[in-house]
Amino acid sequence: MEKGFDFREQLSVMARERLESSSIGEIIELAARHRALSFGAGEPSAELFPKNAIREAVAEAFAEKDVWGYYHDDFGYLPLREWICERMGKDGMAPSWVQPEHILLTNGGGEGVSLVSEALIDPGSVVLVESPTYVESLLTFRKQGAVCVPVPSDDEGIIPSELERIASAVRPRFLYTIPNFQNPSGRTIPEERRVQILEILRKLDFPMLEDDPYHYLSYDAVPPTSFLKLTGNDYRVVHCNSFSKTIAPGLRVGWLVVPPPLKKALHHLRVSAGLGRPTVIQAGIWRYLSGIDFLSRIEELCKNYRERRDAMMDGIKRFLNPLGIRASQPAGGFFIWCESPDSRDIHSFARYSVEEHGIAIIPGQSFFPKGDKRGDWAFRLSYAKVTAEQVEEGMQRLVRAWESYPAARATSGF
Amino acid sequence: MEKGFDFREQLSVMARERLESSSIGEIIELAARHRALSFGAGEPSAELFPKNAIREAVAEAFAEKDVWGYYHDDFGYLPLREWICERMGKDGMAPSWVQPEHILLTNGGGEGVSLVSEALIDPGSVVLVESPTYVESLLTFRKQGAVCVPVPSDDEGIIPSELERIASAVRPRFLYTIPNFQNPSGRTIPEERRVQILEILRKLDFPMLEDDPYHYLSYDAVPPTSFLKLTGNDYRVVHCNSFSKTIAPGLRVGWLVVPPPLKKALHHLRVSAGLGRPTVIQAGIWRYLSGIDFLSRIEELCKNYRERRDAMMDGIKRFLNPLGIRASQPAGGFFIWCESPDSRDIHSFARYSVEEHGIAIIPGQSFFPKGDKRGDWAFRLSYAKVTAEQVEEGMQRLVRAWESYPAARATSGF
Repeated sequence: MEKGFDFREQLSVMARERLESSSIGEIIELAARHRALSFGAGEPSAELFPKNAIREAVAEAFAEKDVWGYYHDDFGYLPLREWICERMGKDGMAPSWVQPEHILLTNGGGEGVSLVSEALIDPGSVVLVESPTYVESLLTFRKQGAVCVPVPSDDEGIIPSELERIASAVRPRFLYTIPNFQNPSGRTIPEERRVQILEILRKLDFPMLEDDPYHYLSYDAVPPTSFLKLTGNDYRVVHCNSFSKTIAPGLRVGWLVVPPPLKKALHHLRVSAGLGRPTVIQAGIWRYLSGIDFLSRIEELCKNYRERRDAMMDGIKRFLNPLGIRASQPAGGFFIWCESPDSRDIHSFARYSVEEHGIAIIPGQSFFPKGDKRGDWAFRLSYAKVTAEQVEEGMQRLVRAWESYPAARATSGF
Repeated sequence: MEKGFDFREQLSVMARERLESSSIGEIIELAARHRALSFGAGEPSAELFPKNAIREAVAEAFAEKDVWGYYHDDFGYLPLREWICERMGKDGMAPSWVQPEHILLTNGGGEGVSLVSEALIDPGSVVLVESPTYVESLLTFRKQGAVCVPVPSDDEGIIPSELERIASAVRPRFLYTIPNFQNPSGRTIPEERRVQILEILRKLDFPMLEDDPYHYLSYDAVPPTSFLKLTGNDYRVVHCNSFSKTIAPGLRVGWLVVPPPLKKALHHLRVSAGLGRPTVIQAGIWRYLSGIDFLSRIEELCKNYRERRDAMMDGIKRFLNPLGIRASQPAGGFFIWCESPDSRDIHSFARYSVEEHGIAIIPGQSFFPKGDKRGDWAFRLSYAKVTAEQVEEGMQRLVRAWESYPAARATSGF
């Protein structure tokens, strides 16, 4: 075979310098290859997908004329946007200016983060992120050329004084936060702190991207008022959400709440990235949601996930705390952040653990900008897809891996 | 209401300087508002969508475990990629190196154009385009900061000597072409000229994005061999395609054929733009295609569209040629390019025509880079959704509009 044209020599700066693999992907792949038990997967449990109801709803949606051609509104299927708008209003998530015209349906939450990144990031722009934060969003911000600066966080999320100190120095384009049951830390920012954070944003005049996919997976109490609602008519918050956790991620439907001054730019960005998304899926989701009591569905999900969280926390108490590993109980979502007492290289340990002991965890480094060492001693556990029996077995494997790792590292170079 | 944060002051260069509305969108919207007859819409005819078969196929696809969670391969549902690969091989569209691992499923053809743009365009990069060319692709290239340079074209598409002259002067990142039944010109590049174009690409060492959504809608003969196939192991051609015309655009499924040296970059770009696309739709399309004789389906489509083309060409002969308007017969696809004998402002005429006489056409300016005057005297007609009766009525309206426009312009400022 002749050599042929080598695109690698001709890539854009974006493709050549700003793209990275997701390190979560690496571990998930290893877990599949080694048929390992996984405390790694960040996706919801398959038994909880409303499969029959969705199949029927989508089949019915195919009877609509509008689903076959290009949908007339690039923001997506209007009845679903109306449903979202009403729901967010009822649940105290949105201020009164939010109307269906401000809801843009996206390919999961990820497309929302991507569109906002394109609209607000120039090469060299600073984006402030939580510490740790969601790895896929870091990849998206970097793709646009952002420098991601982590704001020190404690058990209640971003520390306001640190936010003010850093934002004063760097003039950020925006702050990115997952305020409820954060991925990966499990942390929730209390309402009082949210108000303080918004005051800093107003004072230093920069906006926020609020990513809230775990909102409804709240196991102990009603979650604090959203930043979107708290900011009111100040339009400072772009809110991103998704049906991936409450229905199923494979349907790839999420949404953005777009403040009026951002509508035109996001509309153009959407059109230039391949016109609309499949309307029949959006219409199917709307039919499904119209036929159920959404809050009962949420209650059922929460009951299931609450039990899983409790089982995992119990396992941590019995198996990991004795090793000196610390973890805080999350009030919702899927994730528990664990901190190690020693300075082992967690990424190397995670590979050892999945390859040699058949248990997958996600190393902390994934959740910090590159070069940041704060993830070296931490890892993320997810209980979303883990039964009580699997907690027991997985924890035993994890303990064996943890205890044998120092010797394995010395001899086999892990 | 207080003023609040104004995102318009904080937009990225991309969002502030590079986004434009699609002027096609404007006319389509006017057509809907005035309930006009439309010779404008570039989408396939709704009677030809295989509605029942697709509805059943998608309902069956929901039984697959893989469609509910995140699909394990970010390039999309493997059986559909295998089908595409086999089909392209059989139909002489792909060289032997093309395997399922090189097929990336996209949100319609548009996402393919967008991903390739991100991979290859830097701000200020030159992209060579046909003259005229597809407006949405122009928007996508510009969004990444490209300078789009039209290559003079004749009835057989890009003129090789012009391509060589311009490419020698500007060092293009790539050439963008719709080689078959082009949108908007209806032109097809003959095989001999394709070979000449590829020689120039090799000599001056730049690649091509071949966008071929109308491939199977060939009414008079087998279309010429694809650039992808002709380039063989030279890997110089990225091929973009879609099921929008052969099945239905609302499903939003297209694909890219990705040369091996470009795979890694496109994989990362896909992940950072919202993970995968809805697998159930891809799986449904695969089930549908597996249950039919694809070439018989194509034959039926071609029979229908051939009749529509012939009716529209007949209407042009009877109604528009007498006005001095010239048009060439396309050998496939949906579009006829018409050139006016006078120097009227076609954009203004198109608005007059749809608002006052209830007939929509797409003005030529839309298909050239901004400031290029070559579209001023031309317009695009589409026959895809137009019956013979509608041709008759629409042509009569168009003649009335054409003849009354000069006076209307003088008195009412159109």
